[in-house]
Amino acid sequence: MTMKQPAAKARITTPAEREIRIERIFNASRDRVWQAFTDPKLVAQWWGRGNKLVIEKFEPKRGGHWRFVEHGDDGVNGFEGRYREVTPPERIVQTFEWDGMPGHVIIETATLEDLGDGRTRLVNISLFHTTDERDGFLQSGMEGGMNESYAALDKVLAAMG
Amino acid sequence: MTMKQPAAKARITTPAEREIRIERIFNASRDRVWQAFTDPKLVAQWWGRGNKLVIEKFEPKRGGHWRFVEHGDDGVNGFEGRYREVTPPERIVQTFEWDGMPGHVIIETATLEDLGDGRTRLVNISLFHTTDERDGFLQSGMEGGMNESYAALDKVLAAMG
Repeated sequence: MTMKQPAAKARITTPAEREIRIERIFNASRDRVWQAFTDPKLVAQWWGRGNKLVIEKFEPKRGGHWRFVEHGDDGVNGFEGRYREVTPPERIVQTFEWDGMPGHVIIETATLEDLGDGRTRLVNISLFHTTDERDGFLQSGMEGGMNESYAALDKVLAAMG
Repeated sequence: MTMKQPAAKARITTPAEREIRIERIFNASRDRVWQAFTDPKLVAQWWGRGNKLVIEKFEPKRGGHWRFVEHGDDGVNGFEGRYREVTPPERIVQTFEWDGMPGHVIIETATLEDLGDGRTRLVNISLFHTTDERDGFLQSGMEGGMNESYAALDKVLAAMG
């Protein structure tokens, strides 16, 4: 008898000089993961890693904008961007900008792959304007925050069952 | 006896694979050119090249947003972005995005140089995420539109005298 394998930890690589690639497997169907990414009520439950998240704008369609404000112990942080492409249930391309570095824009391409066994692989490629911006982002503690968000997403996905 | 030299035409070069550099000299002081770039009433008179320009948002300071909608014979075109840096009277760094290609973001760094003879040199560097986006922009007819805007700006500057 074997235990069901736990979801893999996010794998971070730098495949090109201005890119970060993140891969993470979720124990949920692709439709369910898609829903957790595009339903604002669900997004509010995991994106902020347990912090209060105010969704000021959320228009997941080509040309639409998004803006989230996270209220954490270390203060208030705003994030915003715009959708370049939204193709259910497999691909979202959007810009990402943190209020602390306004005008520094990341292009995020998130792809969801149905693994055929009830699990879904998320691959997220972040493209920066410069290598310095990418390296600064890597050193910002983003990895810890991201893993906290994905752990919270695991719980949201399980609760959707 | 010599005639006063007319303002030079904009010079466009591609100094790096993801960049466009534009240089243009204006027959006006740097303070006057700065004002024409940062006073919305003046911007509305030249940015749209004679077309009606609706300034929906204009917050020229770090972190502020801008959004202009141009009503031309060929339709309505929206443009928007955010300020990374605004340093009077010499430097503006902002993002630039056209509604027709949402999520394709250009970083524009505009520098004004006082030439000491009553003229001002504008140098604008545009940085793209990819060379394809830069080349598409170059082929979009942007050069004609830009020269029309700068010719309109010449008139606004002269009228400020």
